Amino acid sequence: MTGLRDDGAAALEWAAAYLERVRELPVLATVEPGQLRASLPAVPPDEPEPFAAVLADLESTLLPALTHWQSPRFFAYIATTASEPGILAELLAASLNQVGILWRTSPALQELEELTLDWLRQLLGLPEGFAGHLEDTASTATLTALAVARHVAPGRRAVVCSEHAHSSVDKACRILELELRKVPVDASFRMRPELVDLDGACAVVAVAGTTSSGSVDPLHDLADLCAAHDVWLHVDAAYAGAAAVCPELRGLLAGWERADSLVVNPHKWLATPMDCSAHWTRRPEDYVRTFSLVPEYLRTTDAATSLSEVSIPLGRRFRALKLWAVLRCFGRAGLQERIREHMRLARLFADWVEAEPGWTLCAPVTFSLVCFRREGSDAANELLLDRVNASGEAFLSHTQLDGSYVLRLAIGNFRTTEDDVRRAWDVLRREARDHPA
Amino acid sequence: MTGLRDDGAAALEWAAAYLERVRELPVLATVEPGQLRASLPAVPPDEPEPFAAVLADLESTLLPALTHWQSPRFFAYIATTASEPGILAELLAASLNQVGILWRTSPALQELEELTLDWLRQLLGLPEGFAGHLEDTASTATLTALAVARHVAPGRRAVVCSEHAHSSVDKACRILELELRKVPVDASFRMRPELVDLDGACAVVAVAGTTSSGSVDPLHDLADLCAAHDVWLHVDAAYAGAAAVCPELRGLLAGWERADSLVVNPHKWLATPMDCSAHWTRRPEDYVRTFSLVPEYLRTTDAATSLSEVSIPLGRRFRALKLWAVLRCFGRAGLQERIREHMRLARLFADWVEAEPGWTLCAPVTFSLVCFRREGSDAANELLLDRVNASGEAFLSHTQLDGSYVLRLAIGNFRTTEDDVRRAWDVLRREARDHPA
Repeated sequence: MTGLRDDGAAALEWAAAYLERVRELPVLATVEPGQLRASLPAVPPDEPEPFAAVLADLESTLLPALTHWQSPRFFAYIATTASEPGILAELLAASLNQVGILWRTSPALQELEELTLDWLRQLLGLPEGFAGHLEDTASTATLTALAVARHVAPGRRAVVCSEHAHSSVDKACRILELELRKVPVDASFRMRPELVDLDGACAVVAVAGTTSSGSVDPLHDLADLCAAHDVWLHVDAAYAGAAAVCPELRGLLAGWERADSLVVNPHKWLATPMDCSAHWTRRPEDYVRTFSLVPEYLRTTDAATSLSEVSIPLGRRFRALKLWAVLRCFGRAGLQERIREHMRLARLFADWVEAEPGWTLCAPVTFSLVCFRREGSDAANELLLDRVNASGEAFLSHTQLDGSYVLRLAIGNFRTTEDDVRRAWDVLRREARDHPA
Repeated sequence: MTGLRDDGAAALEWAAAYLERVRELPVLATVEPGQLRASLPAVPPDEPEPFAAVLADLESTLLPALTHWQSPRFFAYIATTASEPGILAELLAASLNQVGILWRTSPALQELEELTLDWLRQLLGLPEGFAGHLEDTASTATLTALAVARHVAPGRRAVVCSEHAHSSVDKACRILELELRKVPVDASFRMRPELVDLDGACAVVAVAGTTSSGSVDPLHDLADLCAAHDVWLHVDAAYAGAAAVCPELRGLLAGWERADSLVVNPHKWLATPMDCSAHWTRRPEDYVRTFSLVPEYLRTTDAATSLSEVSIPLGRRFRALKLWAVLRCFGRAGLQERIREHMRLARLFADWVEAEPGWTLCAPVTFSLVCFRREGSDAANELLLDRVNASGEAFLSHTQLDGSYVLRLAIGNFRTTEDDVRRAWDVLRREARDHPA
């Protein structure tokens, strides 16, 4: 039988050692599709195995099949961090195994979720009047918000977003059978409000920090339009919302406080392990109207609205514990310090790109994400990216801006230092030099 | 700063000690709504706090606000277990912080998810040809399956289930704007197939193990009907599907192998920490057709379909690691042993009820769930339940069967012994005797 003390000590030591050596591991997994699965038994064991066997296989077999999101040289997509307080809170949450269905099934889960969401609201400088809960991901938050927007505007079946909004908006509209209108962007990849058509629309999804380039849609203009037409405004600040922990950066997000619903993912830029997506609304009663269903086997006399009445799943795990631990163990000051450092590093990298002949910056650097390319064809840039990633020294990803293939360097890992960013730049220039287009 | 080794050792010790004393703690939380939140600071900390402060507050402040799902005398709803291998795998998963978006973002996450789902399929005696993935909860699985069913049957907008199906079917139909037809049940709370109207229906949701009573809808009859009318059959075996680990119990679920989609929650009766819901389908290509969307910033040349193309969220956490650890550390034999013991304990409790004057069994005991009541009014039974739960010695819940208020004793915690079940029965009789109706 697995013992929490002995096997736990071994697991903890493995995890601590992993985080110490993760900088030295190839960032991108080094296996081919199907390779890991082929190396593991195709049938389940009949008899119990010791937990040590799981740990041994993790080290010997799984390790090369991991892409190291915890590496300080992970610069792809949106870089994230599972910080130590968040990791340990997950250990505790699993040990407690709370299942939030009704308030009484875990008052601690529900009240800590409400409290930490209010703490985070304050840290981000959002006004009172936003009620919050947690979801797994921003995809679910956006689906949930658009289901409410559709519910409160019967007959209006269109959603408006920019051509740079996240693919989760497309997916939500498919599920909800809403027409999606994609609005062109300006030279800085921001939705052009003068091209918005709200006829028959139930919602606008504005992005504060697009995945492609970090651009912010014109939030005040869109809020004005939504107010004039009684249309729901959902703001997707999944990545960049965290910047508002720093008062001097709040201007970049000005207008987001006028959203009907708003999503920020602490599992992105706020050091919380996957998954943890914060979803606020100024209209919680509309969520209850859309989702509340209390079958007989869940009826109680408890004087509390349960979180399952404002979201899609009935049961939820104790996600708030890790967010609470992270907010306490970093404090406002600790989070500010790291976000400011990431902003500085992104600016620094952008300066190197701009100063280097043959390289171009492809979008304004609004937050900690830099879009750039090497002169030459799209194919040459794609090959360059492949070579950099194959080196194992850094992992970047790409996007398409103005019809061109563009490289993305996303800074967001709390362990990333200036040396790590410089190393990525060195690798990029080395691979470009060794393999000229 | 939080140190994974030192603070981790303290967290691990707290967790181990918690599981040793959880049997002695009042099962149901002992706080009033709002009490916990009022006892915590209303504003977030400015400066970092040590992780030890989080742990201290967990002990002193959060503990009374927890309902102890890990208690062996938790008999409410569907009883669950977070086993030691599952808990430690969650520690490891949080440390690795894999984010499954594309295959390359974590080959280990994707391939282990596919492998463990195939292991579990084999353990449950399901045929080949079922492709599986993990979701957070059965609510999401049912929503996902019905979205696919709607997609493949354009114009057919009705879903059929029994009046005892889970409320998640109602919620999914609201979100998908499908008409829900609830079919009456027979004397054993099973859907009556002769009353099913499939005109304009895209799906039937059959339940194998209802939440109220554990009843199983007539799966072969419903599969025949669905086949004849080309209607999608979704089988919700969230709780009772685990029983199929024991070959002698598979007859209870016969016909479920004919489902188009099927959900079993390892976080219910298979010792896996919340959340972990296994979702299989025989028609994975229909899922891809419904959900696949690959934006430019996620385009790769990897020869693998990513799990985000068959489910609602884009990103997923490394849930497969805990399922893999649980299946290995228990093995087929370990899981069988515990499920058989739970079946025996439920039968034993039912025998006590039947033998006791003034008490009645209210539904057949199909799996490990017993529905019963004391003679007297509904109000008297409700009061009895409140008194038992207020004692802290056991936690049960209720439902409505044939218009009557009925108590439910659900056995599913791996730490539950015969003594625990006997204690619950003693408390029930004591409270009934001390407060006669």
